[in-house]
Amino acid sequence: MPKKKNNTTPAENVSAESAKKRGRPAKKQEAPAAKKTEKKKGERQTHVRNPKNGAPRKNEKSVKVVSLGGLGEIGKNMTLLEFEDDIIIIDCGIGFPEEDMPGVDLVIPNFAYLEENRSKVRGVLLTHGHEDHIGGIPYLLRHFNIPIYGTALTIGIIKGKLKEHRMPFTPQLNVVSAGDTVHLGVFAAEFIHVNHSIADACALAINTPSGIIVHTGDFKIDVSPIEGEMINLARFGELGKKGVTLMLCESTNAERPGFTPSEKSVGGTLEELFTANEGKRIIISTFSSNVHRVQQIIDVSLRHGRRIALSGRSMQNVVSAAIELGYMSPPAGAIIDVTEAKHYAPGDITIISTGSQGEPMSALYRMAFGDHRDITLGANDVVIFSSSTIPGNEKLIGRIINELSHNGIKVIHDSVQLGLHASGHACAEEIKLLYQLVKPKFYMPIHGEYRHLAANRNIASFLGAPAENIFVGELGQVLSVSRHRAAFTDTVSAGRTLVDGYGVGDVGGAVLRDRLHLSEDGILIVFASVDLTTRYIVNPPEIVTKGFVYVPDAEDLLYEARIRASEILSDMLDRSKKPNLEAIKERIRRELSKLMMNETGRNPMIVPFITDL
Amino acid sequence: MPKKKNNTTPAENVSAESAKKRGRPAKKQEAPAAKKTEKKKGERQTHVRNPKNGAPRKNEKSVKVVSLGGLGEIGKNMTLLEFEDDIIIIDCGIGFPEEDMPGVDLVIPNFAYLEENRSKVRGVLLTHGHEDHIGGIPYLLRHFNIPIYGTALTIGIIKGKLKEHRMPFTPQLNVVSAGDTVHLGVFAAEFIHVNHSIADACALAINTPSGIIVHTGDFKIDVSPIEGEMINLARFGELGKKGVTLMLCESTNAERPGFTPSEKSVGGTLEELFTANEGKRIIISTFSSNVHRVQQIIDVSLRHGRRIALSGRSMQNVVSAAIELGYMSPPAGAIIDVTEAKHYAPGDITIISTGSQGEPMSALYRMAFGDHRDITLGANDVVIFSSSTIPGNEKLIGRIINELSHNGIKVIHDSVQLGLHASGHACAEEIKLLYQLVKPKFYMPIHGEYRHLAANRNIASFLGAPAENIFVGELGQVLSVSRHRAAFTDTVSAGRTLVDGYGVGDVGGAVLRDRLHLSEDGILIVFASVDLTTRYIVNPPEIVTKGFVYVPDAEDLLYEARIRASEILSDMLDRSKKPNLEAIKERIRRELSKLMMNETGRNPMIVPFITDL
Repeated sequence: MPKKKNNTTPAENVSAESAKKRGRPAKKQEAPAAKKTEKKKGERQTHVRNPKNGAPRKNEKSVKVVSLGGLGEIGKNMTLLEFEDDIIIIDCGIGFPEEDMPGVDLVIPNFAYLEENRSKVRGVLLTHGHEDHIGGIPYLLRHFNIPIYGTALTIGIIKGKLKEHRMPFTPQLNVVSAGDTVHLGVFAAEFIHVNHSIADACALAINTPSGIIVHTGDFKIDVSPIEGEMINLARFGELGKKGVTLMLCESTNAERPGFTPSEKSVGGTLEELFTANEGKRIIISTFSSNVHRVQQIIDVSLRHGRRIALSGRSMQNVVSAAIELGYMSPPAGAIIDVTEAKHYAPGDITIISTGSQGEPMSALYRMAFGDHRDITLGANDVVIFSSSTIPGNEKLIGRIINELSHNGIKVIHDSVQLGLHASGHACAEEIKLLYQLVKPKFYMPIHGEYRHLAANRNIASFLGAPAENIFVGELGQVLSVSRHRAAFTDTVSAGRTLVDGYGVGDVGGAVLRDRLHLSEDGILIVFASVDLTTRYIVNPPEIVTKGFVYVPDAEDLLYEARIRASEILSDMLDRSKKPNLEAIKERIRRELSKLMMNETGRNPMIVPFITDL
Repeated sequence: MPKKKNNTTPAENVSAESAKKRGRPAKKQEAPAAKKTEKKKGERQTHVRNPKNGAPRKNEKSVKVVSLGGLGEIGKNMTLLEFEDDIIIIDCGIGFPEEDMPGVDLVIPNFAYLEENRSKVRGVLLTHGHEDHIGGIPYLLRHFNIPIYGTALTIGIIKGKLKEHRMPFTPQLNVVSAGDTVHLGVFAAEFIHVNHSIADACALAINTPSGIIVHTGDFKIDVSPIEGEMINLARFGELGKKGVTLMLCESTNAERPGFTPSEKSVGGTLEELFTANEGKRIIISTFSSNVHRVQQIIDVSLRHGRRIALSGRSMQNVVSAAIELGYMSPPAGAIIDVTEAKHYAPGDITIISTGSQGEPMSALYRMAFGDHRDITLGANDVVIFSSSTIPGNEKLIGRIINELSHNGIKVIHDSVQLGLHASGHACAEEIKLLYQLVKPKFYMPIHGEYRHLAANRNIASFLGAPAENIFVGELGQVLSVSRHRAAFTDTVSAGRTLVDGYGVGDVGGAVLRDRLHLSEDGILIVFASVDLTTRYIVNPPEIVTKGFVYVPDAEDLLYEARIRASEILSDMLDRSKKPNLEAIKERIRRELSKLMMNETGRNPMIVPFITDL
């Protein structure tokens, strides 16, 4: 097991509580404010059906749990815990724009609620280094100079990101290890080792005034991980025995029955493929953050006498970070520079590449389309996708596979070969197992579209959780949790903030509606100038279109539009009592719109530009 | 087995060659022009590597085979066979627009080559009634009043389509049955029964001057079809024994190993689901053209004491056509009107609905979003997708599943339940089986993206076909085939024609590029008028933007743009030797583009509208 270098000064409020890991009672975990005032469960209640549940009463301490991302969506995960004057943040990820958001670069959570409660925000706890958990950090830090806590690889990746975003201050980045507890205000958060498709992933067990709240982060149960230990099931079991008030559990694979295969199972498939393709050059694409997968590809390459070249900026960055931090230790000389790859015989080299999701301009995309500086593919190459297809990327990936097939290059991917990828997310049986260890009083599915949250709810129901103890919520809904009661009690500002170019949040519904309209049928601009007082047309209408019709073939149509616009102008100037520009524009918009629909079956945006000289 | 009503007068050139089906030698099949002049295989050839192959020689009769659709793409299938003065067309389908074709409604083949050879075109043979095989017929008929041949259901579907497209003449629609041969010029095409996900599908065996050419259409081998016979493997075997020159074989599922499950296997799954959901209302969505699936859903519903209601126009149309043509014969009263559905207890009704691909405004979509006139979904409903996900539709389908899950409605679909759908396309082992029966001299994979064509090529290679006898082609490539030789010899006009509103072919690369540009960053229009002779600005610049920024928040930016445009105007009017509009516009475009990129990181389309008064 490589040692992780702790190259950031640990903050004072991180206590390496190794004692706790060995099972001793962890008094320190009890947060100072966690007093026992909420012990009033015997009290009579008239209007609550189940007196044990329902909203916490006014005289009970209750913690607010709010998701600003990750409910009803895949991505931009972000959860807040709030108690009186303290708020802590768990993760702050990005999402990708939907089809109805053309031009948008990425989506981040709406931080309005944090702005409103600026003085309460104590810090950010990160479960792992994937973009959907940390990608929003640079945007968050622009507004809140708060401390950030994560394991070494997570913080390492954040550092890389922050180099691209110039910050007005030095960010407070703190490296923790699984087993450590971070104290932030009234909260004490313990990091617990889990398995996932990135190294150094953690769940969190947070001691709060309402008892322990477990946040699983993203996890799977891998009984044979490539590096490090199996998920710390023992610790989840200990917490379960102590009593957990609320479990927030990821839902990504909750629809899938059974268990997720171990990462190690992919190694066997790779071994077979390398054996079957001796003598050929192997180009293999995977998620760059999947350090363990990259490690396995390196291992099997070395066993087959191949050197390794890395292609793609993020692949090179992540691997060098992983080596620097001790997550990977390939023998000297094993990894060669990609510019040298062409000097090796095909059977002596493996190229590990980005582009497994078909990203345009990724290394693999450039190779496929003959646009890569160092690698030219040919009949002696085999391209392997050691990855799954993220829903929505089917067409992009298909484009690469088709181009490679077209050029006679052999492609091996998940729809023709089983075992090329293992997911990083727990399937139904793993969620059940963790649930049964943690035995939470209240359960809240997080991280998923509604289909996934519903499937996760069904899992808890199947295990006997009463329906009123399971909370499938919406972004911004406030779950108020005391030791014995929980209910959605309120809603705060939440939603999505769109990032487009340098603009954060300036592109919204109106702009997107215009973009979608423009993309469907283009625009028709009518320009004319008139003199409203003399009722004279100074410049007769001219027309420009973009994205509507092919102009050289549409001369008659556009001539007709000019005539119609002229007629409207003359008519309005001649007959209106008091001609005004708005009425003229409105009529041009209406009549040209109708004309175009009748003539072409299309509905371009009509923009009249009429000036009174 | 229901009898198909032959409700169209059979054309004279259709001969019902039932004798042939019983294995007697079919002399009539030999087309008149099929003389033996091409028997010159012993002849010396100097410049051809393999004298048996390569291009047919000048003195050999050779048939040209050209795909105008279906190569390197899923959809818009269309193949031509040409010999001297005769061209026949096999299928004429539509495709759906790609992501880089915003606003485009559908894609049809480019008919330019047919226009150039108008006098040769003899007719169209249709393999089955799916849109990707017949959807282009109304567009083709606008230009060519030629006879069309297909089985009863295929022609029935075409008739429905032609009602929507008013034709300037009465189309020549001819109903044939499997086993019939159609004579068109030099060609004699025999329809052969195959299994597929629509009833009444056929392959074609075409007698040509170069021998027999087999076109598989879309097929699977279903050993237990719901209605009718298994694919006529015996006939393929007979053809193989006679000798087949060329086999054109569909490739849709060529990447998938093994056999496609029988349609009947879906019945077992449905039976289980209906048993598990007794007492609940079942809404089940599938492809409306899958008559056999609909039949199975009706059967299982009746066994469970449920009436059936149909929702969605195409579902109602196809089922009534299928009943009328005798493909389906539900007992009287089994199918009730969808407006009556609400009067039935949940356990007494099944609703069969369109929308299995998540189509916006389909019946299922409207139900999910609470917008269906007759059906309001609730906790007592189960929604079943008896369908697969066509690549590219994942997000649309996900939207419906999420909305249903969000509203607490149980959803069963293919990623949580196996056996809910059986494909209509042959997997690798079925292709192998058909290949071994037909034993063609030359082989050409059709109907697929390059990945599928390549997989199909690999199947033929695996079975021992020499590489030089397998032809993976491009749209428009001419495969010249004699009895003993085949090669790509030429290329004709081919590609895609885009249909947008009433426009067919008028939207092309330039318009689409503009639409994509507009959708990414919107448009910024600068309007001003000047007097070039007096060098005076008559109207100072005004600016309108659409889809670029949210105007109320961007006043400073747009003010800056106006100032910059004014400065450019003043500068050009003052300092140019001879100020001209084009130079002014060009500089405004360039400088404002740069300004916007610097200020916003976005690249709106800049349209300067400068008039000389």
